[in-house]
Amino acid sequence: MQFSSALLENAVNEFARLPGIGKKTALRLVLHLLKQDAKEVNQFSEIMARMRNEIKFCQRCFNVSDGDICSICANSMRKQEIICVVESIRDVIAIESTQQYNGTYHILGGIISPLDGVGPDQLQIESLINRIRKEKTTEVIFALNATIQGDTTIYYIQKKLQSLPVRVTTIARGIAFGGELEYADEMTLARSLQNRLPVESYVNR
Amino acid sequence: MQFSSALLENAVNEFARLPGIGKKTALRLVLHLLKQDAKEVNQFSEIMARMRNEIKFCQRCFNVSDGDICSICANSMRKQEIICVVESIRDVIAIESTQQYNGTYHILGGIISPLDGVGPDQLQIESLINRIRKEKTTEVIFALNATIQGDTTIYYIQKKLQSLPVRVTTIARGIAFGGELEYADEMTLARSLQNRLPVESYVNR
Repeated sequence: MQFSSALLENAVNEFARLPGIGKKTALRLVLHLLKQDAKEVNQFSEIMARMRNEIKFCQRCFNVSDGDICSICANSMRKQEIICVVESIRDVIAIESTQQYNGTYHILGGIISPLDGVGPDQLQIESLINRIRKEKTTEVIFALNATIQGDTTIYYIQKKLQSLPVRVTTIARGIAFGGELEYADEMTLARSLQNRLPVESYVNR
Repeated sequence: MQFSSALLENAVNEFARLPGIGKKTALRLVLHLLKQDAKEVNQFSEIMARMRNEIKFCQRCFNVSDGDICSICANSMRKQEIICVVESIRDVIAIESTQQYNGTYHILGGIISPLDGVGPDQLQIESLINRIRKEKTTEVIFALNATIQGDTTIYYIQKKLQSLPVRVTTIARGIAFGGELEYADEMTLARSLQNRLPVESYVNR
């Protein structure tokens, strides 16, 4: 691409560095910003810088937070003795959107994946164990992606929890709501057969 | 979406206001920025603000520019007596990328479209006529989109140019390179028949 303005070119290049945004999309976004009021673009720019410079991570659950403790951990209406273990902030947002969970979270910041060079030490596993021990947690719910890495992580942490008086569960894996058996993969179908539910408990939900 | 941080939420909302970016994509982009060095995010933010605040429009052709006159208008190697009339800056970038054009541009800033409430007065048509008259332009090339609005705009400007000693042309419209006749629409096929070229001139390119 040939630009007649270095300011324009720099802005396009900055946008194009974001994941999933190519040069053409970047140009479209920059030309859109160029059409906006200067006030709005300055606000955009300021909010991005503030987000990166001022955001904190909750010292208890490692969720993003505006203060030292996130709003979920600080909320006394939530069951502080239940911890849902997730990989990333994105999973917290997904679970919160269901409005079905009323406990707290613990964000591992990744998942055990030797191929990617991620071991248990790089994740918030030590802090999770300490937290469970200190807070006398009653239940730990694993909500990790249903992959080999997810299962490995669950297995690793669960072994460390064996000596503690805490109930350890994982979210159900099975045929998705609205899914058809015919198109389900064998692994999912096999697991959902193994973990079959009594019909009463299913119907009553 | 439920956020545990207002800083995060504001950043996601800002991104989601850009065209073609939904909430989920916005979240992905913001989490990407959050993982970057603060230095890089501050640079991103600064470049966007600078772009909007410092960019100028060329006083001659209305292209984006770092100074009062854009680099194309200021380039004495280019044929200043030929003007290519385009709708937007994006078209300039597209034509410059072909590296086949060595004249100057005139950016109308839109196209005549009564349905969208855009009339000739909102476009840089008056300035184009004045420029042609003043600079003794020898050729005006219309490179507008092949739509009814594009044709209307060409017709309107061309009528105003009738009294001036300037050659008026438009870029060729026909079957795209690599295109198959079978799938071409009738309008395009009909036009490309009407505007057929002698084979010599086609082969010699």
